[in-house]
Amino acid sequence: MGSETRTLTVRLGIEFDGTEFHGWQIQPRDRTVQGEIEEALRRVTGAAVRIAGAGRTDSERHAAGQVASATLSTRLTPDRLKAALNAHLPRDVRIVEAAEAEPRFHARFQAMRRAYRYVIVSRPTALWRHRAWERPIRADLDQIRRATRPLLGAHDFTAFSKQGGDDTGTRCVVARAAWSRRGPVTRFDIEADRFLYTMVRRIVATVLRAAEQGEGAKLIRAALQSGDRRAAAPPAPAHGLTLMRVRYPRLGWLPKERLDVLG
Amino acid sequence: MGSETRTLTVRLGIEFDGTEFHGWQIQPRDRTVQGEIEEALRRVTGAAVRIAGAGRTDSERHAAGQVASATLSTRLTPDRLKAALNAHLPRDVRIVEAAEAEPRFHARFQAMRRAYRYVIVSRPTALWRHRAWERPIRADLDQIRRATRPLLGAHDFTAFSKQGGDDTGTRCVVARAAWSRRGPVTRFDIEADRFLYTMVRRIVATVLRAAEQGEGAKLIRAALQSGDRRAAAPPAPAHGLTLMRVRYPRLGWLPKERLDVLG
Repeated sequence: MGSETRTLTVRLGIEFDGTEFHGWQIQPRDRTVQGEIEEALRRVTGAAVRIAGAGRTDSERHAAGQVASATLSTRLTPDRLKAALNAHLPRDVRIVEAAEAEPRFHARFQAMRRAYRYVIVSRPTALWRHRAWERPIRADLDQIRRATRPLLGAHDFTAFSKQGGDDTGTRCVVARAAWSRRGPVTRFDIEADRFLYTMVRRIVATVLRAAEQGEGAKLIRAALQSGDRRAAAPPAPAHGLTLMRVRYPRLGWLPKERLDVLG
Repeated sequence: MGSETRTLTVRLGIEFDGTEFHGWQIQPRDRTVQGEIEEALRRVTGAAVRIAGAGRTDSERHAAGQVASATLSTRLTPDRLKAALNAHLPRDVRIVEAAEAEPRFHARFQAMRRAYRYVIVSRPTALWRHRAWERPIRADLDQIRRATRPLLGAHDFTAFSKQGGDDTGTRCVVARAAWSRRGPVTRFDIEADRFLYTMVRRIVATVLRAAEQGEGAKLIRAALQSGDRRAAAPPAPAHGLTLMRVRYPRLGWLPKERLDVLG
């Protein structure tokens, strides 16, 4: 405080509950996370600031670890900027980390890998109704894992994309796709260099259906090879999906400290 | 369905998100969990039904495993009764288990032990804002555990009770009081034969304060022995508190299947 105003490039670690948002990306009319953060930045810095987020956004999805970058003029340190933003932000968005970044840092273009988690609860639930898909699962974890295996590696994911989506290119490299279970809670953790719009939700719904039909890997391989959307199931609901963290060259996974307790 | 109407005593396992409720216990004006379930029972059975819940209720507290009992006339099996109740209940209450009980079963009088969890997140959080107390903790887990130890066993918990509360008797036997931590999330799990109104929340706030002041066990012992409420801290917020499960003779912990994923 009281120090000189300077140009600062910051990286922000962001947690949000997407229940009351129309996703991340700013829109003219709807309430979005990017819109709320840019409004808070405007109040704190007195100027219009544009931020770039690493993760794409289905509406209703949540984030335990979205990463965004911005360049702005301020006399605040990153820590004080974080506190000031949280004072202006609504309670369903929190800045959990703010750090100075290299001037050329861009949260979206430089992201190497994104990690998403999809949570399913296989019985009625009140406490998880906004965070998980309520769905009985009629396959065991081994069957589900077998059906998932063909997704690993580099593939054209057209079959798991939205028709008419504005994705540039449909090739993604899936580095991890792991299922785990604890009582009625089943988690799917997936990491890739990039994701197409609705891709994780289509994968979840299609893998479960394939495993339950006992054809597992075969159906998934056929969907990947054909690029035919009809070979995939309609997307699982968005509210089961959470962006967990994002990986960068040298910096590793961000945010450094995040809540890893979903599911 | 189509079978004879009969008198049935049921035990219900109940999960609820207390955010929009004024606690469990039915009240003339406010929205309560007991009120919603009794209304659903009235619609399903066509008659007024009173239910008894095992857990006491600060408003805003949640339940992963509340247990209740009721005697009613129905031609439904317990499983169909569960489905019918969930069809009538709002989404923030779910019946997760329904089973026939002995005619004399009473969820409150026969409960031997209750298990509560209190969750603290030591940095700002959006995803846990309705389930956890946001509070930095300036003591390590060992200090906190040392401060907790004097609470184990049978004591007069007057110092940790609400003045003018309607508790009959202030002696409780604490069987377990365990702290654990995972990143910024700290959990306190406590089990006792019974709890006084606001007792868990007063214990949490007082133990943290005592540990942070470096006087740990000494302050807690003094509070227990004096029975002086001024020796305890004001209660931690109710929204960090969740009833996890309830133990009964022969039946063990109920509900059998519950979400053990809080924190």
